[in-house]
Amino acid sequence: MANKKYQVNMNNHEKFLKEAIRLAKENVKTCQGGPFGAVVVKDDKVISTGVNKVTGTNDPTAHAEVVAIREACKKLGSFQLDDCIIYASCEPCPMCLGAIYWARPKMIVFAASNGDAAKAGFDDSFIYKEIPLSIDKRSIQTINIKTENYNAPFEEWIKFENKVDY
Amino acid sequence: MANKKYQVNMNNHEKFLKEAIRLAKENVKTCQGGPFGAVVVKDDKVISTGVNKVTGTNDPTAHAEVVAIREACKKLGSFQLDDCIIYASCEPCPMCLGAIYWARPKMIVFAASNGDAAKAGFDDSFIYKEIPLSIDKRSIQTINIKTENYNAPFEEWIKFENKVDY
Repeated sequence: MANKKYQVNMNNHEKFLKEAIRLAKENVKTCQGGPFGAVVVKDDKVISTGVNKVTGTNDPTAHAEVVAIREACKKLGSFQLDDCIIYASCEPCPMCLGAIYWARPKMIVFAASNGDAAKAGFDDSFIYKEIPLSIDKRSIQTINIKTENYNAPFEEWIKFENKVDY
Repeated sequence: MANKKYQVNMNNHEKFLKEAIRLAKENVKTCQGGPFGAVVVKDDKVISTGVNKVTGTNDPTAHAEVVAIREACKKLGSFQLDDCIIYASCEPCPMCLGAIYWARPKMIVFAASNGDAAKAGFDDSFIYKEIPLSIDKRSIQTINIKTENYNAPFEEWIKFENKVDY
């Protein structure tokens, strides 16, 4: 992955970040989820927006960033967010950060920190601490069973000629 | 989060894990995504299944576990997977692990390891290494801008009386 640093246009960053914050604030009274918003921008144009919809849609993965990424990819017809910037009202949680890495935008800009979120009752520091642990040390019991055919899907993938890498 | 260890019924675990592996293998020729499958089980009954649909649906978040979690939550009418077990053909990536922590199942059982996946070209170790880094050390340029209203969504949330915590 490129480690290129992009020029920072603070005026544009503030403009799009404020839109993510506005969406986050507006989302509270809709009762569809928490106070989080995100905006995906490409070439200074908004491609998609997202708000947290966890409780309203019974979807624990419907965080603002995930919602915005899924919508942006649909609009762009790609599973990659090349040259896009993700603006988030709050620092991404590990799930969203993982989703962002898979989507590969060029930049992430966020406003509130995880610490600010924790003060409002949203504490993802627990998940940040769990992810680097070995499976025997994690709080959700995790077991690895090597069934005799555990590698069959990968063997099938390796020999399949029409695969689309991602 | 409870750190309770559940009794392991290896026969059932193997049965459901093999179903996840079967789905993973079958998914290759559909060209909708990679060789990954997942099954969500509650009270020894399959609630949902999922396969990787990243390339087929242009959704970088459509990993098998995320697809299965979203479907299980929809069926159960809840954003939590209480008392559920997630069976995955392969060790979850950080995004999926984050999603699993938010969904809070009681157990995770997987077959192939991240190392096995890497040999087939699926290497999420890069993302595992990035997540614990401070934002200035990450490969995707990340900046934090504290706009004057950065905390407004949380202030709105704190004073809103009808909120649904999650």
